[in-house]
Amino acid sequence: MSAAEAAALIPAGANVGMSGFTGAGYPKALPQAIAAHAKAEHAAGRPYKLNVWTGASTAAECDGVLAEAGAIGQRLPFNTDPIARKAINAGEIDFIDMHLSHVAQHAWFGFLGHMHVAVVEVLGVTADGLLIPSTAVGNNKTWLEIADMVILEVNTKPPAKMEGMHDIYYGTAIPPRRVPISMTHADDRIGQPYLKVDLDKVVAVVETHKGDRDNVFAAPDANSNTIAASIIDFLSHEMKMGRLPQEMLPIQSGVGNVANAVLAGLLTGPFDNLLGFTEVLQDGMLDLLRSGKMARASATSISLSSAAYRDFEENIDFYRDRIILRPQEISNHPELVRRLGVIAMNSMIEADIYGNINSTHVMGSSMMNGIGGSGDFARNGFLSFFVTPSVAKNGQISCIVPMCSHVDHTEHDTQIIVTEQGLADLRGLSPKQRAKVIIERCAHPDFRPMLQDYVDRAMQQSAGLHTPHILTEALSWHQRFLDTGSMKIG
Amino acid sequence: MSAAEAAALIPAGANVGMSGFTGAGYPKALPQAIAAHAKAEHAAGRPYKLNVWTGASTAAECDGVLAEAGAIGQRLPFNTDPIARKAINAGEIDFIDMHLSHVAQHAWFGFLGHMHVAVVEVLGVTADGLLIPSTAVGNNKTWLEIADMVILEVNTKPPAKMEGMHDIYYGTAIPPRRVPISMTHADDRIGQPYLKVDLDKVVAVVETHKGDRDNVFAAPDANSNTIAASIIDFLSHEMKMGRLPQEMLPIQSGVGNVANAVLAGLLTGPFDNLLGFTEVLQDGMLDLLRSGKMARASATSISLSSAAYRDFEENIDFYRDRIILRPQEISNHPELVRRLGVIAMNSMIEADIYGNINSTHVMGSSMMNGIGGSGDFARNGFLSFFVTPSVAKNGQISCIVPMCSHVDHTEHDTQIIVTEQGLADLRGLSPKQRAKVIIERCAHPDFRPMLQDYVDRAMQQSAGLHTPHILTEALSWHQRFLDTGSMKIG
Repeated sequence: MSAAEAAALIPAGANVGMSGFTGAGYPKALPQAIAAHAKAEHAAGRPYKLNVWTGASTAAECDGVLAEAGAIGQRLPFNTDPIARKAINAGEIDFIDMHLSHVAQHAWFGFLGHMHVAVVEVLGVTADGLLIPSTAVGNNKTWLEIADMVILEVNTKPPAKMEGMHDIYYGTAIPPRRVPISMTHADDRIGQPYLKVDLDKVVAVVETHKGDRDNVFAAPDANSNTIAASIIDFLSHEMKMGRLPQEMLPIQSGVGNVANAVLAGLLTGPFDNLLGFTEVLQDGMLDLLRSGKMARASATSISLSSAAYRDFEENIDFYRDRIILRPQEISNHPELVRRLGVIAMNSMIEADIYGNINSTHVMGSSMMNGIGGSGDFARNGFLSFFVTPSVAKNGQISCIVPMCSHVDHTEHDTQIIVTEQGLADLRGLSPKQRAKVIIERCAHPDFRPMLQDYVDRAMQQSAGLHTPHILTEALSWHQRFLDTGSMKIG
Repeated sequence: MSAAEAAALIPAGANVGMSGFTGAGYPKALPQAIAAHAKAEHAAGRPYKLNVWTGASTAAECDGVLAEAGAIGQRLPFNTDPIARKAINAGEIDFIDMHLSHVAQHAWFGFLGHMHVAVVEVLGVTADGLLIPSTAVGNNKTWLEIADMVILEVNTKPPAKMEGMHDIYYGTAIPPRRVPISMTHADDRIGQPYLKVDLDKVVAVVETHKGDRDNVFAAPDANSNTIAASIIDFLSHEMKMGRLPQEMLPIQSGVGNVANAVLAGLLTGPFDNLLGFTEVLQDGMLDLLRSGKMARASATSISLSSAAYRDFEENIDFYRDRIILRPQEISNHPELVRRLGVIAMNSMIEADIYGNINSTHVMGSSMMNGIGGSGDFARNGFLSFFVTPSVAKNGQISCIVPMCSHVDHTEHDTQIIVTEQGLADLRGLSPKQRAKVIIERCAHPDFRPMLQDYVDRAMQQSAGLHTPHILTEALSWHQRFLDTGSMKIG
């Protein structure tokens, strides 16, 4: 069937579960056909918007074209597309920012409403009617199960030898029928290589031959390298002190340049035989696998630059034995993250002096991308790092502030904050003790005196001295940036 | 040995692990002897403070006397004692507010420093040298394992027939040696009835004969009853809609009068054969057990009023078959809370219009009690309720505010907010949609127009319209209360 014919099957207002996680495995044809259909409907004076649920981010050919056509009513749980972001922050799209480990179960429980259509990219269909998953698994298992009708995009571009790499676990259930997930090592296979679908629900199959988004990374810069070195030094120290097992623990790495740089740092670090237990496999982890530093990696998505993707394609026999792709309810599962003792490394927008973390909101009101899996890993991991350069916007924004303008990870979930200035180990510290180390070790020198002045005056003026604050000033740095373009005074 | 002799064994600056959870099972003799010792040391010009780690709250005879003597340097993870609270908010005690499911493992990992002494109340020692746990298990298993030396308080007051009620799980481990916890029902027993201790580490045994703190509850008032009725209606509706299984799911209930009233509401509600999977068993849950409405309850502590405690003592044969007391790392374990599909009900200090929750801080800077287990249950539960009356301090404080002055549970973790005004179901809603239902259904009429005015103006003035805010006003309600004694204007 053509994509246009398939798109016409989707009624206005439908809840649509799409494949796609971090710019991988998203449908390539349907979204463009839906966008064209939406524009035609709008031109005819008929409203046409869909509620789009995915694994995580997609790409310009999916979120971009749909947002540009005004075809998205509600969007969850994560987005990085600039056109969709603009619509979210203009109040035109209702965006729901969820823990990635919650999405499949909440949809399955019926908490998000009924799913009408699933649009899922696969690499093929076996003779038995099983589906070969694509470069991302995301929530596809659940979407295929709960949707009334299914549209498959069969993409022949990714290597056919990916067949067998995936590990789709069909042992989850709705309480009270849940049982333990029998995984004790990050590289255990607990499922089967294929997705199942009720073929009677498949209303269309559309063929595509197109690669994923080119997930370009900046070459690690000086700041990123310094952050990476701090983390590796810290892990070495923890191991020496007997607080980190000699065999190391599985690594989770968030998305982005700094995270990628930390993985690059591990290439020359002292740790061998690493395991990855993460949501997205980026270039840095592919490098670790290729070098032999990392033995195996578990993820829900492969999100690579075009250069790394070529390497992946050319060496698929090597990588297929070393990469396991799972549903995101498993890759991010609190039960597994805690049991395996994952070392979590996630980037952030800002931290406050008491260790609260803002991962999502610019100046308290505008959505950047979403919380993603950072909460799944930070809350449940063995160790949890939050990383950022100490300043942004050419030094006009301090990423260490008196009070976060939005909180995604609370003081109870933050262990270690790292900037290029240094590392603050917050374990076992009270709020005031945290403020001292965060200001001394993580804040940029341009802002350190201002932060210290805030704390000093808060110690005089605050109603309570457990978490001293001056409420009239706590968010003034953000307001100053909005007013003047800088958090600096005068 | 006398308590005074035992207290003299504890050096200044020691990290001391004490038993005690919600005013139950705390040591009754040692803290008073330590306080006397500390006062003598202070009088002699010598510093003497201890770092006190417990399960959760203790009582006046423990936290109270220690704080009054200035004998607490650091305190974790929870406190309800008013003298200790005052010292925390005066900046004299370093208080570390932790998820209760994190405490044992972080101490075991060595993240909090080395534990020198454990002071643990037990009901007796068996001929084999095993310890019969008391009215609370808390972190006792871990304290006994990791402390250099152990002081036991043998309390002969609680019923001897409590022997056998406890279920102490010895299957936890430090990663990478963790395995699944093989519990699939809230009332599964997975451990043994006794605590183990290396008898060579026991430096003192002190005898006591004293009941726990009288955990008095107010009789449910009109507001609490209204909240309880809303929750029960909601659960009935969810069951009718097929979103809650007919057999119901295990109930967790936080501490306090409103939580207790909800349990009282279940007494006459439509649900039978209930299971409890909670951290504290309060009067309300005892009533449910007695009535037969609840079949069994799992907790880490029994925290009762004196009247309920008499019933518990007199009917110990009935209750010992229906109550299971576990270590708090198990009672609050994310793996189990998610697997069992717990229905979580926790009180809060305030919610903001976007669904962020403050459970700990009064006016952003003063600690009330701590986060306790609310995060363990809210993040991982099947359904999660946060409840509060809509106003406090004779109507001068709105418990629904533009922005929380401290965030303990983020928008990603909040599902349902309930006040006596009504219930806001936030599942599947974007921030602006949440603001609408929270203001309409939960805010007190005295504050509803002010909240709506804030949102209306934020929609005009906010830099971003995903989570509209006026940063110069977001915390002004709290500041106004500090300045004038009321959040109301003029």
